[in-house]
Amino acid sequence: MRVALDVMGGDHAPEAPLAGAVEAARLWPDIHILLVGHEQKIAQVRGEALPSNVSVVHAEDVIRTGEEPVRAVRRKKESSLVKVCSLVKTGEADVAISAGNTGALMAAGLFHVGRIGGIERPALAPVFPTVDERGVLVLDVGANVDAKPSHLTQYALMGSVYAEKVLGVSEPRIGLLNVGAEEGKGNELTKTAYPLLKEMPLNFVGNVEARYVLNGACDVLICDGFSGNILLKSIEGVAETVLSALKEEMRRNLPSKLAAAVLKPRLVRFKEKMDYTEYGGAPLLGLQGAVVKGHGSSDGKAFKNAIKQARTFVERDVIGQISQNLGS
Amino acid sequence: MRVALDVMGGDHAPEAPLAGAVEAARLWPDIHILLVGHEQKIAQVRGEALPSNVSVVHAEDVIRTGEEPVRAVRRKKESSLVKVCSLVKTGEADVAISAGNTGALMAAGLFHVGRIGGIERPALAPVFPTVDERGVLVLDVGANVDAKPSHLTQYALMGSVYAEKVLGVSEPRIGLLNVGAEEGKGNELTKTAYPLLKEMPLNFVGNVEARYVLNGACDVLICDGFSGNILLKSIEGVAETVLSALKEEMRRNLPSKLAAAVLKPRLVRFKEKMDYTEYGGAPLLGLQGAVVKGHGSSDGKAFKNAIKQARTFVERDVIGQISQNLGS
Repeated sequence: MRVALDVMGGDHAPEAPLAGAVEAARLWPDIHILLVGHEQKIAQVRGEALPSNVSVVHAEDVIRTGEEPVRAVRRKKESSLVKVCSLVKTGEADVAISAGNTGALMAAGLFHVGRIGGIERPALAPVFPTVDERGVLVLDVGANVDAKPSHLTQYALMGSVYAEKVLGVSEPRIGLLNVGAEEGKGNELTKTAYPLLKEMPLNFVGNVEARYVLNGACDVLICDGFSGNILLKSIEGVAETVLSALKEEMRRNLPSKLAAAVLKPRLVRFKEKMDYTEYGGAPLLGLQGAVVKGHGSSDGKAFKNAIKQARTFVERDVIGQISQNLGS
Repeated sequence: MRVALDVMGGDHAPEAPLAGAVEAARLWPDIHILLVGHEQKIAQVRGEALPSNVSVVHAEDVIRTGEEPVRAVRRKKESSLVKVCSLVKTGEADVAISAGNTGALMAAGLFHVGRIGGIERPALAPVFPTVDERGVLVLDVGANVDAKPSHLTQYALMGSVYAEKVLGVSEPRIGLLNVGAEEGKGNELTKTAYPLLKEMPLNFVGNVEARYVLNGACDVLICDGFSGNILLKSIEGVAETVLSALKEEMRRNLPSKLAAAVLKPRLVRFKEKMDYTEYGGAPLLGLQGAVVKGHGSSDGKAFKNAIKQARTFVERDVIGQISQNLGS
C-alpha cells in the first residue's frame, strides 16, 4: 500500500509530517510512504537516511493556508497538496494525506480525484472526542455549506460504512444534528431529511442536540457543513477557553499554584482523553479515492495516527463498500 | 411599571420565581410585580405576606415543557404563560417574563402580543457570558430556524438597540456568525446577508467564527435560529462536559482531592464568571411588547436578574427605539 503524504502542509511542516511518516514506516512495514514536497527542504530537515519504505516525490510548489482554494488548486499544479491527490488519481498512491489548506484539499479532491458516482457532495468527516472515549464521526463540517436532504442521506450511508470499517463500531448509531430531540423539530432541511433517514437500512437513532454530542449520544452525527462547522469550532473554542481560564484562576496565588501542580497529571490525562490527535485525520468521504485531511496543528503523533487511519481506510475498502451500498 | 411574571414556568417553579420576585420587589420599589399563576399553589409556597408592590393574578392552567407549543397556546388560554402575554397586550402589564416552554412563549408572543411593523420574525436573544465578562448578545437562537437575509439585518438592528440601551454598550460591535473570517465565506444566507449588513448604519465588524464568540469578538452576534441554537447548546454542553470530567479526574486520589479543595474557590469564581444567571433572561425582540424568556433552570437569583433586565428593557423604551430606527 502506498501512502502519499503532503510534507509541506500544516502548522508544523515539514518537521511534524516527516517525524510522523518515519515512525509510521517503522510501525507498519507493509506500507510505503511517499513524502511529497520540496526535496531540498526535506533533505535539510532530515539528516539521516530515510527508512527503506519511505521515498521522496519532489513538488516544486506549496499552497499556503490563506490562499483562495479553487484558484490555488488551478494554478499550482506542482504543489505538494495537488500532487498527493494526483498520485491517487493515477494509481501511484492508494491514499493521500494533507494537513494543509482545507478548502484547497477539498477542491483538489474534487478536481483531481473525482466523486463516487451517486454521491452529489463529498463530506469532511472528523472524529470528535467524546467523554466515553468512543469518539463520534461528524459529517459534514464544511465541505458543503449549503446541503440538501439527499446530501444528508448520502452522508449517513458513507458515515455508517466508515464508522463500521475504520472505527470498528458495529451497527453505528446514526444521529441527526438538530435543535430538539422530537421528530418534527428543526429547520426545513432536517425536517425533510428525518423521514428519509428513518427509511434507510441504517441504525438511525433520531435527532441529537448539540449539548449531547460529546456525551456519546451517537457514533455518527449527520449535519449540513455550516452547522457542522459551527459545532466543531464552538467545541474547540469552548474547551480552549474553559481550560485557559481555569489555568489563569489557578495561577492567582501560591496555594492555588501548588494545588494546580498536584493536579497537573490529572489535567494532562484529561487533555489527552479529549485530544483530537489520537483520532488521526478527517476523511473526505465521497471521493473515488482515499483522501484524508490532517488537523492544521498536527504534531508528529497526529500524522502517525492519520497514516494509521488512512491505512485502515484503504485496507477495509471503504470506498468500494460505499459504492456497493449505493448500488444496492 | 408593571411586570407580569409567570410563576408556574421553569424547572424550579413556583419557588424560584416567587423568591426572585420578592427580592426584586424590595430592591426596586418603583415596579409592581404581578405573580401570574395558580392562587392556591402560590399561597401554599408563600406563607408570609407579599410585599405591597407584589400581587397575584390567578391563572387556572399551566403549559408544560414537553407540550407542542402552538397547540398548547391555542388551547390553554387560561395558562400562566399565555396570561402574562395577554396582560402585556391589554396594557395591564409593561413586560412579561416566563421561564416556561420556549416555543410556547414565542407562539404566545406572536399571537397575543404581535410583531412590530417591519419586523418579519421575532428573535430570541440571550446574552452568552464571555471571558472578558462583557457578554455577547446572540440572536437568533431558535425563534426562527429558517432565516432569510432580511431577517438577519432586522436582527442586527434590534440587537444593536438592545445592546446599547439595556446592556450599556456604546456603538455595539455587530458580528455575523460564519465558518470563516473573510468576506465571501459562508453559505448562501451569510454570503447574501454580509453586504447588506455592511451597508447598514451600524458598527458591523464582519464575520465571526464560533471559536471566538466566547473571547468577546463582538457585542452582538447575528445568526439564523438553527445555527444559533447549535452554538448555544454546544457551548452549554461543552462547558458542562469539561467541568464535570475535570471534577471526576480530581476525585481519583487523595492528593488530587486535597488540591481540588484548595482550588475550589477559584473554580467557583470561574463558574460565576461564566454564569448565565448573572445576565437575566433572553428578550424576544421584534414583538410590540416586552417579553423576556428566563432560562429553564433559573433559580431565584436568575429570576431577580431577569426582572432587573426587563425593567431596563421597558425603561429605555427599546421597542420604541426599534420602531423609530426601522422608520428612518
